[in-house]
Amino acid sequence: MKQKRAIGMEFIGTMILAIAIVGSGHMAANLAQDGGVQLLINALATALSLAVVVKVGMKTSGAHFNPAVTFVMVILKKISNELAALYIAAQVLGAILGVGIANLIYDQSFLKQSTISRDGSNLFFSELFATAVLVLIILTFRKKDELIAIYVPIWIFGAILFTSSTSFANPAITIGRVFTNSFTGIALDSVLLFVVAQFIGALVGLIVAKNLTIAGKKSDE
Amino acid sequence: MKQKRAIGMEFIGTMILAIAIVGSGHMAANLAQDGGVQLLINALATALSLAVVVKVGMKTSGAHFNPAVTFVMVILKKISNELAALYIAAQVLGAILGVGIANLIYDQSFLKQSTISRDGSNLFFSELFATAVLVLIILTFRKKDELIAIYVPIWIFGAILFTSSTSFANPAITIGRVFTNSFTGIALDSVLLFVVAQFIGALVGLIVAKNLTIAGKKSDE
Amino acid sequence: MKQKRAIGMEFIGTMILAIAIVGSGHMAANLAQDGGVQLLINALATALSLAVVVKVGMKTSGAHFNPAVTFVMVILKKISNELAALYIAAQVLGAILGVGIANLIYDQSFLKQSTISRDGSNLFFSELFATAVLVLIILTFRKKDELIAIYVPIWIFGAILFTSSTSFANPAITIGRVFTNSFTGIALDSVLLFVVAQFIGALVGLIVAKNLTIAGKKSDE
Amino acid sequence: MKQKRAIGMEFIGTMILAIAIVGSGHMAANLAQDGGVQLLINALATALSLAVVVKVGMKTSGAHFNPAVTFVMVILKKISNELAALYIAAQVLGAILGVGIANLIYDQSFLKQSTISRDGSNLFFSELFATAVLVLIILTFRKKDELIAIYVPIWIFGAILFTSSTSFANPAITIGRVFTNSFTGIALDSVLLFVVAQFIGALVGLIVAKNLTIAGKKSDE
Repeated sequence: MKQKRAIGMEFIGTMILAIAIVGSGHMAANLAQDGGVQLLINALATALSLAVVVKVGMKTSGAHFNPAVTFVMVILKKISNELAALYIAAQVLGAILGVGIANLIYDQSFLKQSTISRDGSNLFFSELFATAVLVLIILTFRKKDELIAIYVPIWIFGAILFTSSTSFANPAITIGRVFTNSFTGIALDSVLLFVVAQFIGALVGLIVAKNLTIAGKKSDE
Repeated sequence: MKQKRAIGMEFIGTMILAIAIVGSGHMAANLAQDGGVQLLINALATALSLAVVVKVGMKTSGAHFNPAVTFVMVILKKISNELAALYIAAQVLGAILGVGIANLIYDQSFLKQSTISRDGSNLFFSELFATAVLVLIILTFRKKDELIAIYVPIWIFGAILFTSSTSFANPAITIGRVFTNSFTGIALDSVLLFVVAQFIGALVGLIVAKNLTIAGKKSDE
Repeated sequence: MKQKRAIGMEFIGTMILAIAIVGSGHMAANLAQDGGVQLLINALATALSLAVVVKVGMKTSGAHFNPAVTFVMVILKKISNELAALYIAAQVLGAILGVGIANLIYDQSFLKQSTISRDGSNLFFSELFATAVLVLIILTFRKKDELIAIYVPIWIFGAILFTSSTSFANPAITIGRVFTNSFTGIALDSVLLFVVAQFIGALVGLIVAKNLTIAGKKSDE
Repeated sequence: MKQKRAIGMEFIGTMILAIAIVGSGHMAANLAQDGGVQLLINALATALSLAVVVKVGMKTSGAHFNPAVTFVMVILKKISNELAALYIAAQVLGAILGVGIANLIYDQSFLKQSTISRDGSNLFFSELFATAVLVLIILTFRKKDELIAIYVPIWIFGAILFTSSTSFANPAITIGRVFTNSFTGIALDSVLLFVVAQFIGALVGLIVAKNLTIAGKKSDE
């Protein structure tokens, strides 16, 4: 029963996140002329909705909403392989449904493939970096849920503004964003590059955390 | 005496909120050229004033300032039917007075009917969604007032930026917004659609909370 | 010795605040084309610097930085008349010096009179309202310094965005702002209207707090 | 071992900060037309990444990421001369590498000298002021890490918006910013002026703190 609720929360939380990211993309494209203002609207909406779903979902599911995070928790043996597979399925389905809902409330067709190519080693490294610091934050504060709920949205807000890939940093959301023709979309061809970068970034974040912040806590305490 | 203060707080709090929403609409229309900047000003002003009135009013009235919230509290038997009716009357009157004050301080006539039609199933669903998550947040954190005071404004800030209806999410404020000709207004004809969506959304939020977040707390503790 | 430090803190804190308000006005005028972006820059800079000086100064002087606040504290007998007079003198001098410094770091002459008239009953009421809620917040949270340090900047941030007078809400800062030719200035002829509105607003805030929020705490505890 | 981790953290933290500052400069130049929006994007990215690295690094290294801060800690004998030298080397190298990474992820050449001259006594005083208040905040809250983690980013966010020099306030970051041709760069010729102002500002902040806020705590307790 508890697991069912956790999986339901991963589904709904990722869905809300996807609605926020893609919905704010439609809103910004409709209203804002300046591309910087469009980015600010998208970054703010993403960070604010992330802050809400992480806090609401923390006690029910641990508030992953991100296969890269679930993957790290598998490595650390904080979640079973079976539950992790169900989490990731819920995240991907939630992301796709969320994108569809965002399209619908802006009077677009439910799912429409994006044509925005996002390629190149610079975007690869950008995603890797954004995801690595995301995981570093989560592992540094692992026993202090309230700090994760604050610093994860702060990081993502910032990283959308300063990384060249605008920090997707989430394989489920990346897959969902294939299905919108707003500026928040990504062409199917570019998904693999992003997802690989995100999983490698997650591993890098894990290694840095083990050597810098977690190591420090263990040996000093 | 305590009830009188609570009703007075609902009146004043909703009035301040309405001044902020409609006043920032006048300000943005006067100063900003870019529609995205106008939206950012309106969203920020709404969220900041909401943060203030929720915190100031929490101990006096529970800080509803929203008939959809009062409606949920009636269902949960947290407030009597009589007091709820007085709350809702205070909220609606406060919202209308607030809109009038916002018009006056911007040198407009006190109350002027809006002509902005807001119709369609996409806006209906947008309002339903925004209000559902609002109620989910309130019920998830019900025993932790300070979290409601933080996450309700965060949600509304985000939802204004990514929902196609810009998240009125409040029947009293929706009625008040009939009486301004700024871009924050809504035509009388569109009010019913919004208010029905908000009350249905409140019920959806209640159901989700009961099955995901509240259920979790009860059974796990 | 303690009093000397308190007066020094009122001087420096109000100076920093004035540098932020007028400096951001010069910055926004230099860089931003959109009037809404100029307002956002000014509002953000004001709120952020206010957050800093209130927190830094709270234990040393109570962090008034505002003659309207000191005036309320005199009425409530929380500060002696003599110390209050010294506070207000320090605030006004700090504000004028701060405006001068802001002019200098933007390569303007030290003090230059503003020609921006700000008149009319709508601005009068706008200032009265902004100051009344400011005092309501301070009195509601009087025994919880950390809440004042958070909600005062939040209120001022919002109120700059939605009140037609852009919420000067501070007689010392109002006097200081006579001495800049940036868009944050105010003509000497308009100062009296603003200052009177601010002191009346402070009294209104005191009355509302006594009847709603403070009364509630006393009788319910 | 603990020292090695501390030096590693100073390197990585300053690197992340430099990526954020210069990366957001590239992003803003690519996307935003309005100079005010460019400034907002840069200020937000700087403050948000600073908030993250200060919190993540606090327990491992004290989260200086700034030679001016390390310099003050040497004066206060909170860190040995040897470790301070290693900290400053790590900060400078981290800043340069971070700027290079920011250039790379935006498809620019790794290190490219800036040609933006930033001179004049007004910028000198602006940097001095921004760094002085930065040090005042750090010393006022020295025994409360969590307040430093909040108020340092708030100050820098504000100061970027209202100081004419946009508050570099950090000698390592200043040196790093020589190596980008984005609008966040600084010509090599202007570095000395900025760095001298920053160190003098740090001393001024130390003196003000000793006389106002720290003195107050000692004598009143």
